[in-house]
Amino acid sequence: MSVQVTSQFATTVASTPENKVITPPADSRQRFKQFVQDLQDSICDGLEKLDGQAKFQEDNWQRQEGGGGRTRVLSDGGVFEQGGVNFSEVWGDTLPPAILSQRPEAAGHGFYATGTSMVLHPRNPYIPTVHLNYRYFEAGPVWWFGGGVDLTPYYPFQEDVIHFHQMIKDACDAHHPEFYPAFKRWCDEYFYLKHRQETRGVGGIFFDYLDYRGKLYSGPNMQGEAARYSQSVGPVSRSWEEMFAFAQACGNSFLPAYVPIAEKHKDREYGDRQRNFQLYRRGRYVEFNLVYDRGTVFGLQTNGRTESILMSLPPLIRWEYGYSPDLGTPEAELYDTYLKPQDWLGEIS
Amino acid sequence: MSVQVTSQFATTVASTPENKVITPPADSRQRFKQFVQDLQDSICDGLEKLDGQAKFQEDNWQRQEGGGGRTRVLSDGGVFEQGGVNFSEVWGDTLPPAILSQRPEAAGHGFYATGTSMVLHPRNPYIPTVHLNYRYFEAGPVWWFGGGVDLTPYYPFQEDVIHFHQMIKDACDAHHPEFYPAFKRWCDEYFYLKHRQETRGVGGIFFDYLDYRGKLYSGPNMQGEAARYSQSVGPVSRSWEEMFAFAQACGNSFLPAYVPIAEKHKDREYGDRQRNFQLYRRGRYVEFNLVYDRGTVFGLQTNGRTESILMSLPPLIRWEYGYSPDLGTPEAELYDTYLKPQDWLGEIS
Repeated sequence: MSVQVTSQFATTVASTPENKVITPPADSRQRFKQFVQDLQDSICDGLEKLDGQAKFQEDNWQRQEGGGGRTRVLSDGGVFEQGGVNFSEVWGDTLPPAILSQRPEAAGHGFYATGTSMVLHPRNPYIPTVHLNYRYFEAGPVWWFGGGVDLTPYYPFQEDVIHFHQMIKDACDAHHPEFYPAFKRWCDEYFYLKHRQETRGVGGIFFDYLDYRGKLYSGPNMQGEAARYSQSVGPVSRSWEEMFAFAQACGNSFLPAYVPIAEKHKDREYGDRQRNFQLYRRGRYVEFNLVYDRGTVFGLQTNGRTESILMSLPPLIRWEYGYSPDLGTPEAELYDTYLKPQDWLGEIS
Repeated sequence: MSVQVTSQFATTVASTPENKVITPPADSRQRFKQFVQDLQDSICDGLEKLDGQAKFQEDNWQRQEGGGGRTRVLSDGGVFEQGGVNFSEVWGDTLPPAILSQRPEAAGHGFYATGTSMVLHPRNPYIPTVHLNYRYFEAGPVWWFGGGVDLTPYYPFQEDVIHFHQMIKDACDAHHPEFYPAFKRWCDEYFYLKHRQETRGVGGIFFDYLDYRGKLYSGPNMQGEAARYSQSVGPVSRSWEEMFAFAQACGNSFLPAYVPIAEKHKDREYGDRQRNFQLYRRGRYVEFNLVYDRGTVFGLQTNGRTESILMSLPPLIRWEYGYSPDLGTPEAELYDTYLKPQDWLGEIS
């Protein structure tokens, strides 16, 4: 199931007629920036209402090499132990090598990137941790959309997972019927801890290098299922407007996908056992973000704003040597059923 | 001060007379293995005496691709919240690319590696965390020693730092007067969190690819001062026996370097403030080990035994967005004075 497709795709893209250049509208940067700023605002508003106690504190910051951002963090809330919602806009002379290897046409050009990212760490172990990120890049002749959203429960409820995926699928389906299957698989493969042979959680969607070309570029983690699915994504030539509308739909589906789950469990009683398991499982979030996550590692190694990048890390974490859950417990069910890719909606053939 | 020396060294090594091949003794692997197993035993004995309450639990494990190890973990002790001392011995068909780029002569050859590694996380915030690792590699025509030891205090005492460095320096000086200056600098540069612009702690020594050749290979982190110092290390042709004796001296200096520090502070009173700062600073240990540490990242990405690799992570950790210590506090002193490379013994010119 592990298919190396990088060179195959590169060849295909270079030789097919759909590879004619489509340029974004003149106000593309401004419009995407406005969208992610508005999304940051609406998400923060929704989360403050849900939390009921704490408010987001905002830090505005400048990046020496070009750009800046506004980081918002909510701490010690009624629902959230910590939550961060970041907006950033950066530009510079050259993209890093890891991105240039995926987009060689960008070599020798400056770049512009803007996006919003969010990670929420609830206090109650029955509420899942959740992550969202939507971003847009322009560099010389190329531009693309990326991002996604994924859910990481500690004590999962099947109906919550189905609800979360259904909300995302609805947003995807309104734009293309193959987006959800392709990006759901991509998410399962990207948010995967190889050294644990576990998914980070129950997934959602993830996409990257999404532009007007019918066949997606294959990223370093896009192998096997995701690569196979990406080949079926069409139409051959999408417009910038279509993809922008898709990204907006995804972003706007977050609150209805997550808030009902958090509302349902926020007053549920729990004890030391559940709290300890939550702290232990938060360690996996740290392992993923510091070892594998492209954005985090890239940010840390390229003079990003460390505090904004690492606001994704949980406020309190445990590691325990040699832990494994007892058979037949709810903790074991997480591993046995939920930390493996699943077709939650029963619709992916 | 950032000097790229890789190619320069490669050239030097290939063209100078000291590059004649010196082979290790026939029983080299067995002798180093015996040394690190004995070191694991003596360190565990010494730490159990120091702890006074808990004992190490041992896991023996096999590696599918060849080799295995014995992992020992002490938890919930009187002095140590968690401590792990690992022994491993592994072999295989080929070294990973990152090592082959440093030792191209090893290409096409199988390899053998054995070593011991240790990380201790004390409960009392006045006792420093400490790390030790000594290892030995053979691969075709090449072989080398590596390792080191470094101290990470939360509330440092200058006399402790001087004692720790003096014990290490004494061990080094008995073998070559330039080992301590070179390997002390290398340690400061290797255990450095670029994204924080902080050292991990107050250092110690670190060396890698140490073989019979006078000029050391430059590793990826060996730039600037360490590279400059490494060029002055001699004699031009050391014997395997000399280096083995040096590694043994380093390993055996650990207990007298660390135990007195832990003894001195183990009953010192502390409160929530000190505990919270300790948990926060432990986050830096996680950041270093998961983002930068060669051994950890290599192990995780190449099917190592995850639980043995990650036993280095602290048992409980905090992250806090935007924390910085108040001026004039002991916490600020750590940053201002101790998390910058210092010539603790006043002897490095």
